Amino acid sequence: MSIKGKKTRIAVNGYGVIGKRVADAVMLQDDMELVGVADIATDWRTSAAGAKGITLFGATLDHAAAMREAGHEIAGVLDDLLAVSDIVVDCTPKRIAAQNVPRYREQGIKFIVHGGEKHEVTGHSFVADANYASAIGRDSTRVVSCNTTSIVRTLSTLKRAGLLKKARGTLLRRATDPWESHLGGIMNTLVPEADIPSHQGPDAQSVDPDLDVVTMAVKVPETLAHLHYWTVQLNRAVDKEEVLQAFAASSRIVMIDAGAGLGALNSVKELMADMGRPHDNLYEVALWADMLKVQGDELFYAYMVDNQAIVIPETIDAIRALSGTVRDGAASIKKTNKALGVGDLPRQVTRQ
Amino acid sequence: MSIKGKKTRIAVNGYGVIGKRVADAVMLQDDMELVGVADIATDWRTSAAGAKGITLFGATLDHAAAMREAGHEIAGVLDDLLAVSDIVVDCTPKRIAAQNVPRYREQGIKFIVHGGEKHEVTGHSFVADANYASAIGRDSTRVVSCNTTSIVRTLSTLKRAGLLKKARGTLLRRATDPWESHLGGIMNTLVPEADIPSHQGPDAQSVDPDLDVVTMAVKVPETLAHLHYWTVQLNRAVDKEEVLQAFAASSRIVMIDAGAGLGALNSVKELMADMGRPHDNLYEVALWADMLKVQGDELFYAYMVDNQAIVIPETIDAIRALSGTVRDGAASIKKTNKALGVGDLPRQVTRQ
Repeated sequence: MSIKGKKTRIAVNGYGVIGKRVADAVMLQDDMELVGVADIATDWRTSAAGAKGITLFGATLDHAAAMREAGHEIAGVLDDLLAVSDIVVDCTPKRIAAQNVPRYREQGIKFIVHGGEKHEVTGHSFVADANYASAIGRDSTRVVSCNTTSIVRTLSTLKRAGLLKKARGTLLRRATDPWESHLGGIMNTLVPEADIPSHQGPDAQSVDPDLDVVTMAVKVPETLAHLHYWTVQLNRAVDKEEVLQAFAASSRIVMIDAGAGLGALNSVKELMADMGRPHDNLYEVALWADMLKVQGDELFYAYMVDNQAIVIPETIDAIRALSGTVRDGAASIKKTNKALGVGDLPRQVTRQ
Repeated sequence: MSIKGKKTRIAVNGYGVIGKRVADAVMLQDDMELVGVADIATDWRTSAAGAKGITLFGATLDHAAAMREAGHEIAGVLDDLLAVSDIVVDCTPKRIAAQNVPRYREQGIKFIVHGGEKHEVTGHSFVADANYASAIGRDSTRVVSCNTTSIVRTLSTLKRAGLLKKARGTLLRRATDPWESHLGGIMNTLVPEADIPSHQGPDAQSVDPDLDVVTMAVKVPETLAHLHYWTVQLNRAVDKEEVLQAFAASSRIVMIDAGAGLGALNSVKELMADMGRPHDNLYEVALWADMLKVQGDELFYAYMVDNQAIVIPETIDAIRALSGTVRDGAASIKKTNKALGVGDLPRQVTRQ
């Protein structure tokens, strides 16, 4: 347990796409300490972690031995790391985290899992804007997936503005992550998800059961980000300015303009690189303000979701909620945003 | 003018993606004669037309000279072709056809333009299922674009079944056509169309003004086909079987099953190749029956649109309507379908 005034000690289990970004983000928080990272890789990925000064642990004795043999400096095994940490953020691949949970419970350590796991693994699903308060002091929570995070951020913002009746979305999902795109992915085709509705709608309801949301999904041959198209039935006819103002209430939705040259996924990612963000992370939902259209009581818009980055600020907030060190969600969000530069984009290309 | 019992003499102006398919399709009709094709290309495309025994004309004297110099046998110029034809199908690039119209009117020849032109160019926009009758005997019509054709086919079928209230669609548009994909196209990104709604919704209303339809569109990095996702508000709650039966009323909507291995664009195209269709043409709207979902009075589905092929049967029917040789739309559709093999797919992978 963290004690007020002391830094919360964080273990990261799994140094992959999410784990390495969580580790980076934790190191930027003045109220957290990254105790170490556990993994099983023996290659360049572990070397990179070591080169950054991160203390490394093997998932098991065997893994630790193999990692040492490959020339990495290994401080011990996962259990050693858990013993000196307050909270473990599990970033292992889908379905592995659920298998780790009994160990976390045995060790009496608080834990965070990600959207690859089912809601039942923790009984609580987290998006900071929507339900920070209900996670305070809990033993565990699940930071929902990238797509679900974006859905809850946008729809719960419309809901708090009293505008949302129901929402129907089409999700274009990136085929594979950039770092492993040489291992295969779809080429020159589109692959509809077999089931309509797709799982993201019900998953958003695991955070806010009131959301009337249906999603359809399709895999597309690119690696940069997901792209969502939404048709929203509003409670009443409004003008566009009212919708823009509603979205402005969330610090993690950034309004961008296609007319300012940000007319495609790659230009938005390049802007993130130009801003000096690590991994070109887009933490925000990037929603096109000039494309957004209101027609009577219907609202249409599209936004971009960086599947590798969007859950990182949520994870940092989830840590604070579980630790109980910051009891005001808005204060945690503000603190996280400042540390990561969330919302810190040039005014010329945004409406904020 | 064609005389009853005689074949309608057809000129095709422009031997590109659509023109070559129209020429092939005309040659398969027992009530039409392909008099010739006019173009400006001097390369392999013109050679291919010549090798098929198609009579070639230059668009102008200069073009005819250049084509002859490149070794092609050229029978004359476009005006010569028009002089011996009853109907010209203009398949020249977008916006060029509108410039050709004064010449067609001067020569007193009936003409068909395609979806790249505005409705006003002919004052009539054509989809066989929806409005064959209103084109009978006209001097001209516009066969609407691939996306609009698919929208009118599906929504007007739901409308005739008394089910349609309103429809909202997201269109994933192929980046470029296969034959010119070496000339450039988007890679590893997605490019939202700048305007919501996109133009296809209003365009569908040029065929049927009653349709309450809104579309959003995005360019995707593949060349095979377009993919549409639809959310439809029905007039009442129905069961899925009723919707499937409604769609079955159109011979140009084929219900396919992802579960039968047709889970992506490329597998559907491969089936068309296996069926021996020229250019692997998918003339039908290929709608996934097993993905289709009804939820109360809402309907969700996805379908594939072969942008190169879907308008070909419509063009053949448009010829018959303008010529007045077949006054029953259903009879023309049946005749065209039989000549092209529309709907002639293995039962194992379809629901028809």
